[in-house]
Amino acid sequence: MSKTNMEIFETLESEVRSYCRDFPTVFTKAKEHKLWDENGKEYIDFFSGAGALNYGHNDQKMKEKLIEYIMDDGITHSLDKATSAKAEFIEKFNEVILKPRDLDYKMMFPGPTGTNAVESALKLARKVTGRTDIISFTRGFHGMTIGSLSVTGNASKRKGAGVPLNHTVTMPYDQFVDEKDSLDYLERYLEDDGSGVDLPAAMIVETVQGEGGINAARFDWLKRVEEICHRFNILLIVDDIQAGIGRTGTFFSFEKAGIKPDIVCLSKSLSGYGLPFAVALFRPELDVWSPGEHNGTFRGNNHAFVTASAALDYWKDEKFEESIEQKSELTLTFLNEIVEKYPELNGKVKGRGLMVGIECENGEVADQVTSEAFERGLIMETAGMDGEVFKLFPAVNIDDAALKAGLEIIEESVRAVVKEPVTN
Amino acid sequence: MSKTNMEIFETLESEVRSYCRDFPTVFTKAKEHKLWDENGKEYIDFFSGAGALNYGHNDQKMKEKLIEYIMDDGITHSLDKATSAKAEFIEKFNEVILKPRDLDYKMMFPGPTGTNAVESALKLARKVTGRTDIISFTRGFHGMTIGSLSVTGNASKRKGAGVPLNHTVTMPYDQFVDEKDSLDYLERYLEDDGSGVDLPAAMIVETVQGEGGINAARFDWLKRVEEICHRFNILLIVDDIQAGIGRTGTFFSFEKAGIKPDIVCLSKSLSGYGLPFAVALFRPELDVWSPGEHNGTFRGNNHAFVTASAALDYWKDEKFEESIEQKSELTLTFLNEIVEKYPELNGKVKGRGLMVGIECENGEVADQVTSEAFERGLIMETAGMDGEVFKLFPAVNIDDAALKAGLEIIEESVRAVVKEPVTN
Amino acid sequence: MSKTNMEIFETLESEVRSYCRDFPTVFTKAKEHKLWDENGKEYIDFFSGAGALNYGHNDQKMKEKLIEYIMDDGITHSLDKATSAKAEFIEKFNEVILKPRDLDYKMMFPGPTGTNAVESALKLARKVTGRTDIISFTRGFHGMTIGSLSVTGNASKRKGAGVPLNHTVTMPYDQFVDEKDSLDYLERYLEDDGSGVDLPAAMIVETVQGEGGINAARFDWLKRVEEICHRFNILLIVDDIQAGIGRTGTFFSFEKAGIKPDIVCLSKSLSGYGLPFAVALFRPELDVWSPGEHNGTFRGNNHAFVTASAALDYWKDEKFEESIEQKSELTLTFLNEIVEKYPELNGKVKGRGLMVGIECENGEVADQVTSEAFERGLIMETAGMDGEVFKLFPAVNIDDAALKAGLEIIEESVRAVVKEPVTN
Amino acid sequence: MSKTNMEIFETLESEVRSYCRDFPTVFTKAKEHKLWDENGKEYIDFFSGAGALNYGHNDQKMKEKLIEYIMDDGITHSLDKATSAKAEFIEKFNEVILKPRDLDYKMMFPGPTGTNAVESALKLARKVTGRTDIISFTRGFHGMTIGSLSVTGNASKRKGAGVPLNHTVTMPYDQFVDEKDSLDYLERYLEDDGSGVDLPAAMIVETVQGEGGINAARFDWLKRVEEICHRFNILLIVDDIQAGIGRTGTFFSFEKAGIKPDIVCLSKSLSGYGLPFAVALFRPELDVWSPGEHNGTFRGNNHAFVTASAALDYWKDEKFEESIEQKSELTLTFLNEIVEKYPELNGKVKGRGLMVGIECENGEVADQVTSEAFERGLIMETAGMDGEVFKLFPAVNIDDAALKAGLEIIEESVRAVVKEPVTN
Repeated sequence: MSKTNMEIFETLESEVRSYCRDFPTVFTKAKEHKLWDENGKEYIDFFSGAGALNYGHNDQKMKEKLIEYIMDDGITHSLDKATSAKAEFIEKFNEVILKPRDLDYKMMFPGPTGTNAVESALKLARKVTGRTDIISFTRGFHGMTIGSLSVTGNASKRKGAGVPLNHTVTMPYDQFVDEKDSLDYLERYLEDDGSGVDLPAAMIVETVQGEGGINAARFDWLKRVEEICHRFNILLIVDDIQAGIGRTGTFFSFEKAGIKPDIVCLSKSLSGYGLPFAVALFRPELDVWSPGEHNGTFRGNNHAFVTASAALDYWKDEKFEESIEQKSELTLTFLNEIVEKYPELNGKVKGRGLMVGIECENGEVADQVTSEAFERGLIMETAGMDGEVFKLFPAVNIDDAALKAGLEIIEESVRAVVKEPVTN
Repeated sequence: MSKTNMEIFETLESEVRSYCRDFPTVFTKAKEHKLWDENGKEYIDFFSGAGALNYGHNDQKMKEKLIEYIMDDGITHSLDKATSAKAEFIEKFNEVILKPRDLDYKMMFPGPTGTNAVESALKLARKVTGRTDIISFTRGFHGMTIGSLSVTGNASKRKGAGVPLNHTVTMPYDQFVDEKDSLDYLERYLEDDGSGVDLPAAMIVETVQGEGGINAARFDWLKRVEEICHRFNILLIVDDIQAGIGRTGTFFSFEKAGIKPDIVCLSKSLSGYGLPFAVALFRPELDVWSPGEHNGTFRGNNHAFVTASAALDYWKDEKFEESIEQKSELTLTFLNEIVEKYPELNGKVKGRGLMVGIECENGEVADQVTSEAFERGLIMETAGMDGEVFKLFPAVNIDDAALKAGLEIIEESVRAVVKEPVTN
Repeated sequence: MSKTNMEIFETLESEVRSYCRDFPTVFTKAKEHKLWDENGKEYIDFFSGAGALNYGHNDQKMKEKLIEYIMDDGITHSLDKATSAKAEFIEKFNEVILKPRDLDYKMMFPGPTGTNAVESALKLARKVTGRTDIISFTRGFHGMTIGSLSVTGNASKRKGAGVPLNHTVTMPYDQFVDEKDSLDYLERYLEDDGSGVDLPAAMIVETVQGEGGINAARFDWLKRVEEICHRFNILLIVDDIQAGIGRTGTFFSFEKAGIKPDIVCLSKSLSGYGLPFAVALFRPELDVWSPGEHNGTFRGNNHAFVTASAALDYWKDEKFEESIEQKSELTLTFLNEIVEKYPELNGKVKGRGLMVGIECENGEVADQVTSEAFERGLIMETAGMDGEVFKLFPAVNIDDAALKAGLEIIEESVRAVVKEPVTN
Repeated sequence: MSKTNMEIFETLESEVRSYCRDFPTVFTKAKEHKLWDENGKEYIDFFSGAGALNYGHNDQKMKEKLIEYIMDDGITHSLDKATSAKAEFIEKFNEVILKPRDLDYKMMFPGPTGTNAVESALKLARKVTGRTDIISFTRGFHGMTIGSLSVTGNASKRKGAGVPLNHTVTMPYDQFVDEKDSLDYLERYLEDDGSGVDLPAAMIVETVQGEGGINAARFDWLKRVEEICHRFNILLIVDDIQAGIGRTGTFFSFEKAGIKPDIVCLSKSLSGYGLPFAVALFRPELDVWSPGEHNGTFRGNNHAFVTASAALDYWKDEKFEESIEQKSELTLTFLNEIVEKYPELNGKVKGRGLMVGIECENGEVADQVTSEAFERGLIMETAGMDGEVFKLFPAVNIDDAALKAGLEIIEESVRAVVKEPVTN
């Protein structure tokens, strides 16, 4: 095959395209933590599809299951008809994930993307409570459709809506202003009848904010959010789309915080293989939906059911969480060293588990680091309002050698950047 | 494998599930126009995934391409990074579909579902025009996320939003009130400065309404919609998610109407294989997006690129459209005969191409017909506000024998129903 | 006193001022149907404060009562404390107006302006029904605060809101499109569950639209509006602020149509003397307000109570309505003659009672007529989207000689205009 | 005249009535700080029409001017035509109030009530900036029409809207949470692009909140609000409807804070006589209104122009402010003594100038105090979310003897209440 002309994208694809501008090459193949482009160059992937490839690319066991299923002409598309692949996923998810964590959630298949899950969570919260408002948090990111966008903080994304985004109140996320607990404010708003903040249906929160700049809320803060929700009879929605499925060390990111959300949104790495898939989970008492009240053409993506079921096997092994923790510690140590070793970077370590990064002085510096890394064969993106955080999202099952190789490239990249200090 | 217990779905899946209630069996396998359940019973599929399986199930050529791609560890998930699979799709879609139809649209990959495409179309129209309102039409259906839901007519779906749906005006679809042209009203609203209807950013219309009851707008009506849009400098969005990709006989459903929408939404059968996939197409002058202004985790579903490229081969063959037309005529003749032959049905033939149905006196009758058909091995759903239309959506490449076999089952089912007249 | 410098207004008053631009002189005195400016020039008033001075200026009997009240240090401002002046008004309004018309409305004092009455009517309708939407009609005008503006049709006024105006649906007023009954459309919208028009709390309608261009709805049309409201359990609000209090011949403008609105808004001429005053009237069953749920500083304007009570005496005399009718006929005959006699005007007679006018070809012509009239000592304004209607609003108790003198000036003005045909 | 039956109100007036429930008697006459009911009982008025009667009732000089004007058949109602009475007011307001304070505001007459002024201020701010959102503050009160209600904090008033109140963000007023400066939060929201708070058109603030519980913002806090507005190019609106016109000691309540708002809303005591009247004042550069873009039937209430002009004479006398200050000190000393002397009251002194009160433990206690006072011939109301503050609003020109007599009644009332401690 002759080489692909990047002009195809520049001429025929909309200006809205973005990552192909940051990583200007045509990718052809991927396996585990590795990607190759059409020039045969190999890359270590510390991007992981923005959290959609926590198990790496094209996991061998999932791949075999998927091929077998396709070969056998298994149902591909089923809306919400009953299929054997779906039954297997539901049952296995209940056995492997929910039961051991003492969670008796019902499962809803709202369409195959994160924003479908968020939109259905908001709808459900409003229906259950009969209230309209949702409290979201500063720097939160929940999706691009109007309902999800209304609980998203990013100003430029919000402006893209083209209409005012209403029925939501944004409250300060942990450490948004300073180290003090921002929840004193939130609580005052709710308890005072003259605050102008109407009692909301729900609060929606990420335990670690990805797009917002890899901000990890303290467990105490999350616990108090839950307490406030209970006090005022507000539903607690955890959007675990990016932080969940092992990214911070446990299947759900909120496990160590000791909270039990009323509704949980999952997507991204849920299929394990990078296939579109999402679920909303909720307490059985909240299941007040009428049949078909929320629907969607691709809510029955059976290929995803197949690979998602296979992915659950990882969680049967008790050592899996331990291995993520060990990699997390290795990474954290590395990042702390980098910050100390290169004071010119003026960096700050952020995040939790394998959802970590370094906040640089500004977006330009962070961007230079990721560009240097790309040159050296490492794929990594930035986050934060100005893109000021470079973000490490290796596969959670990456082997130690590859992890270290990646970290080494990062150090080289940082070194290259601080040697030539940024001048504005 | 032992049989799947339907209890899995009843216990663990949300009450929102719907089709599994209408077709209470567990499906395991599918090929072309056929489905099998775990009891080995074979069904003819006149449902086609609500229009997501226009080429039938698991098309052999697409399947081979897909398996080959997976075997080779082709990129599965890429966000909007450049991949060879994506480049091939873009280029082939342009060559096979756009160019021959003299359409120079840019392509946007807004996420893999129809509602992603609609939401991005609405955003773009608002951004381009600086206006907030959208005109939609009675009985229109455009999706379940808040933006799309706000242009959807169905009262119970709208109520599910839990918030008022704003920034939209609903106008009468062709023949909503009577045979007269409802566009006199629409035009008066737009030309009168005291009408209370603000100049909208866009109108969004389906050429044939699926969910709304298989209502086909007359070509003259569609042409006049376009003229009014031009007169007032309003963008015309055609939501071709259900009616497009061959369902009414041509690739785009609006080709025969002789109109050229500013924005087109495609999804459902776009991947050819039932995989989640959607695009928004628009005139190059409208491409005012900033990079990443709209994004989404699964906008780069490469498996869908692969099968969608393979699906385009159907459209290289000039005889393909003819064959759909021939099947459409056969089906139409059959439906007209049924209505005449069974006056007790009080039926009315509706639709265009292979997007057709019979409107019965009420939903109960239509439901009895589809239930009788299911018993006899034919899968078919109902549409309309009361579910009063039973809906024929065979694969557009179904062979004549299978088509006739399906029609025969329908006649038997109708006969069974009218023999036992409904009593309320 | 030296003459007032118009510069005071030009320098210190906002650009939002308008009538002082059309009538560029400083007025000092007024009596009955006459106004004088500081140059001593006398004007006949066919404007009547846009309907706020239906009994003419400074009515002698009301004036005496008011002066007496002020001299005695009667309560001026009382919020909604009980005062003797208020008690007298309430009781007399009930005796003289409501009882004889078999109306058992409760009275609410929502603040002293029309828009206060409309806002409270909308609030009440929403509270009673638990629904959010209001149906208003094309060309309707109901006030300038956000709630009232959202049911007002005028595009430039709406734009002034600076925010999208929501929770309302605008339906075609009688003869908006053509002579056919526009209510077929309205009814279809309400009866079809897929129309996208949610069941509204109320419809708000003017029986004759003032600002909208002196459009009189046919009685049959109004009756059918009421029937549709009853059919769907929607509240009917008549905004009688401009058309009420004798303007169209009866106290309430809807009496001859034979309808009984659920809620009625009155203001403008209610005080009789031009003082700020408004009430909302509604069926007792709708009185679900909590104490103080809607309030306002000037809801107890006792001077207005005093003059309003005095004004009610007009309605004790059975011949009062007859005299208005006789003047209305005289005026109507005159207008018809004008249209016939000056075909160059291309005029069309509009309105009902003493709320009438001639629609000219465009706003420029109508404007020329009112300017010529102003020169000749007659004050008259225009209405309609382009100001294309010149509008006759004499006091309803004007004497015949003055009425004829005014009409004569109009004829002279028309003659002056058509002699010099407009050239664009 | 026989006595008025309170049944008139109970039978014919809506349940929305409120003050007549707290002060269950029929008032007939008023002079300066005194009111009389139909039983001849005399009351000292510490309510002053909720701030609409700052100069007391029926001020003799204003009364004479008003009677003279009415006797001469001066124009009563003029919309915004030029009248000599309006010219006099505009000129005198500029000379006596604006110029000496170095304020070069344009004047807008938006209709005769406070909410008209607020609605027009919000419209103007949105038009000038092209933005939609307004920042308001917790416990703020700005009016009952939908635009004003959307910036009002009170939950039960908001609920009365019957529709979601949008396009506003409510921020913590000074000392809402604790003694710390709440503006750190506000500023963070504005400077962070991910906060979810869009850049607003304006902030609207009361320097002392009346309805909200007599909360006085510290001058430093107000100054910082102004600085933040300047930093982000946000317009600053001071709603001086209740705190202005001498209530806190100066004509505008913000004078001592050293700030210069972009827009100021005045009403209540503006006419001096309790007549409906309001203005919006704004910097000339903001005067981007089109003629008639905002209008209203009663924006030319000439009786109010006449008394308002007379009222301005108070402000010509330099000693007027001093005398208010002296009365304020006397009152403050008294309140502090009460709190100290009656620890059972658990009271807290609140407010500024003659806009003061004591916050009691709960609404029940405060209510008992005002009831005891009413019995003893003093009229006083409560404020705050639970009505927990009893509120002293004497006329600002009350003589010292009357002031002391009123205070004495308050002490007696407090004593009566604390002697019988409240039991829940």
